[in-house]
Amino acid sequence: MDIGVAMLGQGFMGRAHALAIGRVATFEGVARRPRLVAVAGRDPARLAEFAARFEVPRAVTDWRELIADDVGIFANLGPNALHAEPTIEAARAGKHVLCEKPLGRDAQESLVIERAVAATGVTALCAFNYRFVPAVRLARQILESGDLGDLFHARFAYLQAWGAGADESAWRFDASEAGSGALGDLASHVVDLARFLVGEVDVVTGLEQRFVEGRAVDDAVAATLRFRDGAVGTLEATRFATGNVNRLTFEINGSRGAVRFDLERLNELEIADQHGFRRVLVTEPDHPFAAYWWPPGHGLGWDHTFAHEWAHLLGAIAGEHGVGPYGATFADGTAAARVCDAIVEAARTGSAVHVASAER
Amino acid sequence: MDIGVAMLGQGFMGRAHALAIGRVATFEGVARRPRLVAVAGRDPARLAEFAARFEVPRAVTDWRELIADDVGIFANLGPNALHAEPTIEAARAGKHVLCEKPLGRDAQESLVIERAVAATGVTALCAFNYRFVPAVRLARQILESGDLGDLFHARFAYLQAWGAGADESAWRFDASEAGSGALGDLASHVVDLARFLVGEVDVVTGLEQRFVEGRAVDDAVAATLRFRDGAVGTLEATRFATGNVNRLTFEINGSRGAVRFDLERLNELEIADQHGFRRVLVTEPDHPFAAYWWPPGHGLGWDHTFAHEWAHLLGAIAGEHGVGPYGATFADGTAAARVCDAIVEAARTGSAVHVASAER
Amino acid sequence: MDIGVAMLGQGFMGRAHALAIGRVATFEGVARRPRLVAVAGRDPARLAEFAARFEVPRAVTDWRELIADDVGIFANLGPNALHAEPTIEAARAGKHVLCEKPLGRDAQESLVIERAVAATGVTALCAFNYRFVPAVRLARQILESGDLGDLFHARFAYLQAWGAGADESAWRFDASEAGSGALGDLASHVVDLARFLVGEVDVVTGLEQRFVEGRAVDDAVAATLRFRDGAVGTLEATRFATGNVNRLTFEINGSRGAVRFDLERLNELEIADQHGFRRVLVTEPDHPFAAYWWPPGHGLGWDHTFAHEWAHLLGAIAGEHGVGPYGATFADGTAAARVCDAIVEAARTGSAVHVASAER
Amino acid sequence: MDIGVAMLGQGFMGRAHALAIGRVATFEGVARRPRLVAVAGRDPARLAEFAARFEVPRAVTDWRELIADDVGIFANLGPNALHAEPTIEAARAGKHVLCEKPLGRDAQESLVIERAVAATGVTALCAFNYRFVPAVRLARQILESGDLGDLFHARFAYLQAWGAGADESAWRFDASEAGSGALGDLASHVVDLARFLVGEVDVVTGLEQRFVEGRAVDDAVAATLRFRDGAVGTLEATRFATGNVNRLTFEINGSRGAVRFDLERLNELEIADQHGFRRVLVTEPDHPFAAYWWPPGHGLGWDHTFAHEWAHLLGAIAGEHGVGPYGATFADGTAAARVCDAIVEAARTGSAVHVASAER
Repeated sequence: MDIGVAMLGQGFMGRAHALAIGRVATFEGVARRPRLVAVAGRDPARLAEFAARFEVPRAVTDWRELIADDVGIFANLGPNALHAEPTIEAARAGKHVLCEKPLGRDAQESLVIERAVAATGVTALCAFNYRFVPAVRLARQILESGDLGDLFHARFAYLQAWGAGADESAWRFDASEAGSGALGDLASHVVDLARFLVGEVDVVTGLEQRFVEGRAVDDAVAATLRFRDGAVGTLEATRFATGNVNRLTFEINGSRGAVRFDLERLNELEIADQHGFRRVLVTEPDHPFAAYWWPPGHGLGWDHTFAHEWAHLLGAIAGEHGVGPYGATFADGTAAARVCDAIVEAARTGSAVHVASAER
Repeated sequence: MDIGVAMLGQGFMGRAHALAIGRVATFEGVARRPRLVAVAGRDPARLAEFAARFEVPRAVTDWRELIADDVGIFANLGPNALHAEPTIEAARAGKHVLCEKPLGRDAQESLVIERAVAATGVTALCAFNYRFVPAVRLARQILESGDLGDLFHARFAYLQAWGAGADESAWRFDASEAGSGALGDLASHVVDLARFLVGEVDVVTGLEQRFVEGRAVDDAVAATLRFRDGAVGTLEATRFATGNVNRLTFEINGSRGAVRFDLERLNELEIADQHGFRRVLVTEPDHPFAAYWWPPGHGLGWDHTFAHEWAHLLGAIAGEHGVGPYGATFADGTAAARVCDAIVEAARTGSAVHVASAER
Repeated sequence: MDIGVAMLGQGFMGRAHALAIGRVATFEGVARRPRLVAVAGRDPARLAEFAARFEVPRAVTDWRELIADDVGIFANLGPNALHAEPTIEAARAGKHVLCEKPLGRDAQESLVIERAVAATGVTALCAFNYRFVPAVRLARQILESGDLGDLFHARFAYLQAWGAGADESAWRFDASEAGSGALGDLASHVVDLARFLVGEVDVVTGLEQRFVEGRAVDDAVAATLRFRDGAVGTLEATRFATGNVNRLTFEINGSRGAVRFDLERLNELEIADQHGFRRVLVTEPDHPFAAYWWPPGHGLGWDHTFAHEWAHLLGAIAGEHGVGPYGATFADGTAAARVCDAIVEAARTGSAVHVASAER
Repeated sequence: MDIGVAMLGQGFMGRAHALAIGRVATFEGVARRPRLVAVAGRDPARLAEFAARFEVPRAVTDWRELIADDVGIFANLGPNALHAEPTIEAARAGKHVLCEKPLGRDAQESLVIERAVAATGVTALCAFNYRFVPAVRLARQILESGDLGDLFHARFAYLQAWGAGADESAWRFDASEAGSGALGDLASHVVDLARFLVGEVDVVTGLEQRFVEGRAVDDAVAATLRFRDGAVGTLEATRFATGNVNRLTFEINGSRGAVRFDLERLNELEIADQHGFRRVLVTEPDHPFAAYWWPPGHGLGWDHTFAHEWAHLLGAIAGEHGVGPYGATFADGTAAARVCDAIVEAARTGSAVHVASAER
């Protein structure tokens, strides 16, 4: 049975999701075949071109028109400032929702979205796509298995380098559109992975930095992390790490082993026991998501993670499994925002900050 | 304007090409939008499932039925023994043809295909897809530019490891179906890249090896190469290189620099001047094929090469450029087979063998 | 002209320095030929064996007996608690002094040593040997040259993994002997490198952690750093990073380039411009310290750094150059201790801490 | 008990061996303490300087004067043309002999040396120092243990890059002094390792190349190898592999695992089972030669291999073990030369060549 998808956003994210929707439709065993039936965007010319290329029947400039009878899933890929209202409205209209990360511009806005959508009962996924990198899922499986023993250390970094010479008029530098800079754009990804892989963060210290005079959002953040279960770590996100391109890395050390990952080599996971790191190409038949693809050694790209994400969302809608723990729920979106907010507060006050817990 | 595609083969290669056809249709500036209109396969059940997943209107068990009016391109993804006749028949019916590698089971069969198809005037591509890895194309650009100076050395290897415990009934081990083992399957890829990057091979010495008793095809080949323009090198292909998964590598050293590549890290090219190798992520805006995809650092996978290949074929059909030199022509298919045949003869006779030239 | 050396300590450090003293004597152009004339140690049996192996004429159990007429240099390689008194006494007796790191057990003790020795006018080196890794010196040269532009980021880590199953009775776990754990042992090295490469640290936040119940010293520290000149960074030191062995790493990103180092591959420096990192083997004729050794590509080991350190000390004694800026002065030893103390205070109080400046 | 050493040669190799002799004297458990008592060289000024730096009592320009009563070991580090006569004369005078590689300039000369020295009964080591890299010895241990199963593949390469712009008057380019170019200098090393690790070579094919007009010796060789026990492989040695510095590499694949090594990272061995390669820092307490040195992770350099070699020679002289199988005997020197000669003949004739066996 087909399910119609409406997308808010037709830029870089729009193309990534549109391709994924086409691809997931060909997966063996996918619960329902998604079809892109409507897309909304601000720029009529670009919108028309997008609709033609992806053969989307309806293209509209008012996102409210996306919420129509032929739509089962509403995918919000718009700028951060446009996450709350459309997502809530779509959910209230009974559409399942996928919302790009970060969920809201801060924890408070995230919680508003989370609660409003939870009240509707629809299926909701916060699109932290790096959970759907096979190597990241494998790391999660290893951590779940307990093979690493007690966790001691976790270090997370997201290093990009385009910030120095960037176009200052981009929406990513507009505080009202983006909410924040490297924090929401990059740090939120690694905060989500820290929670996904290691668990809840308890206390943070840190700093925030602007390297370009007059820029309204942060260029970089750095933090120390204390996790609830005893591990400690560091976290860094920046758009000024010259020499790196898209280097999201983590390393987690436990009493019996360790895992290490670098997004620039996304088909690999380094796995250590106490005799050093082994490089594993995460393309073997028993590896996560491998059944959708190719024989061993035929690596995947960044955009394949979106197809995995959509397969996961469709499975959750079909009741085959929950959105969590392998996908990020809207509660995960709020929880990540709480950690980000704590880093901001720690940076502002110079004091260690306890991360607000869900109960408060 | 759309163009219909018929595919012979619905296995691993069928899926790769079908996805690529869907993807290339969304590329900006693609000459014509390809649509998969027919598919042929031997196993009716698998065929039906494939047709359903990829929404192919016609599914047939006799490849002759593929050659119909709604078809503009015939893609031959069948086993090697089925390359000649269907490809020639399709071309004679005026269809443009894509044929998987190796073109024929040896140089003689390849030449028969090459000549018969050339006589028809259709556009014909031999699907050596690794020419369409961005890092490989970048290596070609660097070599074309002369930046490496005079070429001294080239070493090529294609190392897989699945041969030891494999199912002996697979078509890849059947001499009449496959023609050869590691030679046609793996060595042909690196022979094509050697020609693509370094130039014509003049003389080879070498050996062939079967590690499993009674296997009808070779498990491994190794050779030394002397290129016409003075470079020397080695070439190796094997299904028994434990520890490797899909490691197609090359390194080319010239008087002013060098390039190095490993398919297991396909988004990277290592480029040396005389002060050591620099690792380049081949995802910058000015890198080959980057315009089709994502911002820097968002790497591609193995299957993206097929989309590039289809975009190239469509451009050639539209007269925007030739199949060569960036795609492999059928003449390239024959030329690669001549080198492979020379390696076989050198291995059999123990003597250095001159590669037959196109003129003979 | 020869110069006699007396060594306090005959363990691991004793062997490293004794070998270096023998080696530096053979260097071309070394200012004075050092000879090991006396050694002191606590364990008479091990001491006798050491003296026999290294052919040291005098072996004593009371360090005071080291301060004799035939001694020109006093090398203090004892446990941290034994750094102050012997070093000061030797300097007061007119001996040049080399003292292992950390200089004192905290900034206050370090300052006492620094001032007492400064009053004597002897040459004094704090033995932060990683300044004498060729790749580290090359990094310093690159930073001095300004080639990296404005500095944005610096991340330092010293990751070892032996802490979990260690012998609890070792002096390194004894607070009175060692002063601290990973902080003084490991973090002090990277703090010194941070100052050597990036400049003075202004503000830190951070945490300290004990993973083993009842251990008197820290097992790990993590911090964020704000440098005086605007760069920000992270620093981590631990004995619990399973999978790593002796991984002292740094990466420094500036507006025009970056450098990256890993002690586990100590012959390499990765140097980035804006097109990615190049791996440089730091063994070329024009690289630091290469004149003492071998043709390019014949790498050095960890212990060679001690020979470089001794050559530097001998040059400083001969008046050829200062101890600083390439070697660590005792003032550098105090300054590193101030940063370490600030990390401890930040960890204890949960507040960002300004590093005390030399003037205060 | 001390043992006097006389060295023929005071250049690069002279320094390496002299340092090693000083170092091995301090090793715990070394059988006899070696002392450098005499050195011979052609250039009186350099010789005098060498003798002063290394405190060698006697420095002579006629190697015959080295063979004196105070000498127990004669170390021949001279150019290849000077290997035969002095080595034989020293052995006949009852001196134990170490001779640098290659033993003779071809198999015939090697055999003359081997037989003449064997007749004297002295201990004789052919100084293939890479057998004494800890990672190489570990590879040998793994291969001896049978853990890799049946061996399928072995690929060896020794890639340097200094050949293009080199000084044509160097002795290494003089056919009468050196015997050959990359073959004797570089290929002989990897041929010895091939025999050390994999076993006897049975048949070779190959080529030889001169890139510089008029050069009297080869610049590069490439070969395919068929080993007696069924493995096949490639071997390459060149001075024209731009981008590499001193890259001696090997990879050996068996039915149950693999090992991989690169001299540019000599402290590492990559060890594969069927799940990928693990990087092992070969500095753990139970690793080869680790007892002589430092705690884990404190890597060694190229010159440490000479100290291991001398410790091995001293142990063999003391009757603690044989020169073989872990050191290279003079018979190993001849055997390596037979493989090199076979490669030369295969290159010259264009035919596969059986390696002469020791019995012929």
